[in-house]
Amino acid sequence: MTHVDADGAARMVDVSAKTVTVRRAVAAGRLVTTAEVVTLLRGDGLPKGDALAVARLAGIMGAKRTPDLVPLCHPIGLHGVTVDLTITDTGVDIVATTRTADRTGVEMEALTAVATAGLALIDMVKAVDPAASIEAVRVLRKEGGKTGEWVRPQDRP
Amino acid sequence: MTHVDADGAARMVDVSAKTVTVRRAVAAGRLVTTAEVVTLLRGDGLPKGDALAVARLAGIMGAKRTPDLVPLCHPIGLHGVTVDLTITDTGVDIVATTRTADRTGVEMEALTAVATAGLALIDMVKAVDPAASIEAVRVLRKEGGKTGEWVRPQDRP
Amino acid sequence: MTHVDADGAARMVDVSAKTVTVRRAVAAGRLVTTAEVVTLLRGDGLPKGDALAVARLAGIMGAKRTPDLVPLCHPIGLHGVTVDLTITDTGVDIVATTRTADRTGVEMEALTAVATAGLALIDMVKAVDPAASIEAVRVLRKEGGKTGEWVRPQDRP
Amino acid sequence: MTHVDADGAARMVDVSAKTVTVRRAVAAGRLVTTAEVVTLLRGDGLPKGDALAVARLAGIMGAKRTPDLVPLCHPIGLHGVTVDLTITDTGVDIVATTRTADRTGVEMEALTAVATAGLALIDMVKAVDPAASIEAVRVLRKEGGKTGEWVRPQDRP
Amino acid sequence: MTHVDADGAARMVDVSAKTVTVRRAVAAGRLVTTAEVVTLLRGDGLPKGDALAVARLAGIMGAKRTPDLVPLCHPIGLHGVTVDLTITDTGVDIVATTRTADRTGVEMEALTAVATAGLALIDMVKAVDPAASIEAVRVLRKEGGKTGEWVRPQDRP
Amino acid sequence: MTHVDADGAARMVDVSAKTVTVRRAVAAGRLVTTAEVVTLLRGDGLPKGDALAVARLAGIMGAKRTPDLVPLCHPIGLHGVTVDLTITDTGVDIVATTRTADRTGVEMEALTAVATAGLALIDMVKAVDPAASIEAVRVLRKEGGKTGEWVRPQDRP
Repeated sequence: MTHVDADGAARMVDVSAKTVTVRRAVAAGRLVTTAEVVTLLRGDGLPKGDALAVARLAGIMGAKRTPDLVPLCHPIGLHGVTVDLTITDTGVDIVATTRTADRTGVEMEALTAVATAGLALIDMVKAVDPAASIEAVRVLRKEGGKTGEWVRPQDRP
Repeated sequence: MTHVDADGAARMVDVSAKTVTVRRAVAAGRLVTTAEVVTLLRGDGLPKGDALAVARLAGIMGAKRTPDLVPLCHPIGLHGVTVDLTITDTGVDIVATTRTADRTGVEMEALTAVATAGLALIDMVKAVDPAASIEAVRVLRKEGGKTGEWVRPQDRP
Repeated sequence: MTHVDADGAARMVDVSAKTVTVRRAVAAGRLVTTAEVVTLLRGDGLPKGDALAVARLAGIMGAKRTPDLVPLCHPIGLHGVTVDLTITDTGVDIVATTRTADRTGVEMEALTAVATAGLALIDMVKAVDPAASIEAVRVLRKEGGKTGEWVRPQDRP
Repeated sequence: MTHVDADGAARMVDVSAKTVTVRRAVAAGRLVTTAEVVTLLRGDGLPKGDALAVARLAGIMGAKRTPDLVPLCHPIGLHGVTVDLTITDTGVDIVATTRTADRTGVEMEALTAVATAGLALIDMVKAVDPAASIEAVRVLRKEGGKTGEWVRPQDRP
Repeated sequence: MTHVDADGAARMVDVSAKTVTVRRAVAAGRLVTTAEVVTLLRGDGLPKGDALAVARLAGIMGAKRTPDLVPLCHPIGLHGVTVDLTITDTGVDIVATTRTADRTGVEMEALTAVATAGLALIDMVKAVDPAASIEAVRVLRKEGGKTGEWVRPQDRP
Repeated sequence: MTHVDADGAARMVDVSAKTVTVRRAVAAGRLVTTAEVVTLLRGDGLPKGDALAVARLAGIMGAKRTPDLVPLCHPIGLHGVTVDLTITDTGVDIVATTRTADRTGVEMEALTAVATAGLALIDMVKAVDPAASIEAVRVLRKEGGKTGEWVRPQDRP
């Protein structure tokens, strides 16, 4: 594990010698809730209002707070974030895409966007469904940097 | 949904008239990773070092940042947080317990602790297992306040 | 001025002896922009999308950051925030209402909500109208606490 | 509006392909208050103390918090901030200048500096003048980047 | 050590059952620098300007950030902060006083105020004296709560 | 003093024209406490647990918060941080090393890492030794940038 030294002490790894290149990461996850909540989120016959916008914003703003939340993450220039939400029959699919032109990858920023969007969704539905959960927060793909492209293997859920 | 008004506009619900009572919430989740990473985290024959401590701290500090991350959450007095991590054969089980003597529940704080501990774990293992995921971030139980005790129903995963 | 001592040194005034009471403040302001932007915000014939939701959320989250932004403000329990936005012929009217049951008033939180909602609006319209401005950020009324009710005098703009 | 996509969903626009160039923005605004407060701020015969320094610092520190406050703003390198305050007969004129060598402009940082300096001023004078207001928060000029120089048109207030 | 459990795991200790009482803490420290810098800070014949105000504000604002900085500290209501700076022949003496009516003591807030004021002072003088140091950051006394009054023993430096 | 202009007004100095170069800073300090606490921290015969990890993490995360804490500091890319802790007979020696490839030096980040690690240590030992102190927070050396290498002179403590 690169984040601890030979004695096991945590450190923020030195990346000052790495090259500034364009990097992109895509992460996903999903809110699992009840049919009743899905109907409310779909807003059939009612103003669905800001619910999805709140989650989208929470995801974008959460991505910017990544170095505050993940102790050994570098504070980097975050140059683009989108959070796409799709209402399904069992909840909400969350996909976040992050981009940078800097010295490290942005997969932690994408994962943090997904996690905070998921937390915001739970916060909004918890009065109706206190058992809602966030599932499968994971990286789908990343591009750029020394390691180049990585795509989630099919044998991983 | 209580967090939007009749027109669908997001708001932070007024809780100034609610009573100050002791409240507790327990949330859980888990990191799913490879056998190779589990061996590293167990640290057999090696200094396992700060890895679990980093995740525990990330969870505790993340709980304190909840009102910064979850747009409609109230900033409240957070009076106790524990984050328990257990290494399993497939990853790490995360359980967070939060306590307050204030006007709203602390389940969002417990969920945020679990999510940030999970993000910190992924950050530490991602060089070895870029496909690690966070699963089943959910409330297990909550106590106190007007609604009293709530325990996760057995029919919800 | 209460925020500086007899020598002129800034301080955060001691309020530990003040009573916990319910307090409320209402502040307002407005974005002034072009007719073209007003049409876009109204979204006639187009998805107006998240624009107003972004400003509403920025206002609510900004209110929570007040003690981080205003150097001598106390960090207090903020127990309710609403941000109401009305599109007019010349821009957007912003009204924020904040509530607490704590030891100090919440007019700075209401003003900060108005100012951050205004900044978010400018950010969204600046590509179309770089000359948009925020006007008349002011307290309309406050209630509760030792000083009781205060209503903006009619002779002040 | 560039900050929402074709469906109206908010996003942080991708700027990773933009060029790093030196950019500068100047924004302004003003505190409007009573003659009594102006006399206090001028400090005739008294130590005026830290009042203006508090507002100046609030403005500089507020500029650094811009990406935390304005949801769709990029976190960028902020390479210079000045906040100039001038006491007038009706209040305080606020002018903020921000500079960067990065991929986006810094007009939101300049506007945030003006707004937070204004909020800090209101906080300090509100015990004497609870009706003080912030007026005309606007960009005066910006330079650098692809769009080059922009100067506030004379027909805009 | 109360901040780790029987297995050595860090935790934020539960204080929800503790009584809300008025508490006060006084901490101190000092900047040690050169005679040249002392002359500049005294500002003889020159505008000494905002230097001391910057440090005072940094201390007050730093006290508010204590729960963000000290991992196991509780976020509490901070009800008063003063930071007193005295220029001496060898530098600047820093004394911070913090007050609360809440469930835990405020000595960490007082110490954080002293440390951040000291850091701000070093930042301002480092171009002239890069070897300036912060010394003797320590609690002088605390009052209130279950343990009552504690005064620094004379045999501790 | 570069941080104030000719009139004494604080400012964040413009560094947009400075060159991006690799820079490094090393700062140090120490916790001074009792023999009893040293025994606890050494953990002889007991799980010493997370105590040192908490301080190490506080230091690393504190370094990232430097521009939030030190009013006139630039927000910069922080590309590496290590915090080394050594238990001595009288307390804990703290050494922080920070690296960047950006436009300003990182000595304030190194000093902030030392100060926050020290505050976290005091927080953990204060129940046993309320008189623990932080001593000698100072820069040991810095490298890179226009001024090149600087090593603490031997005649400074």
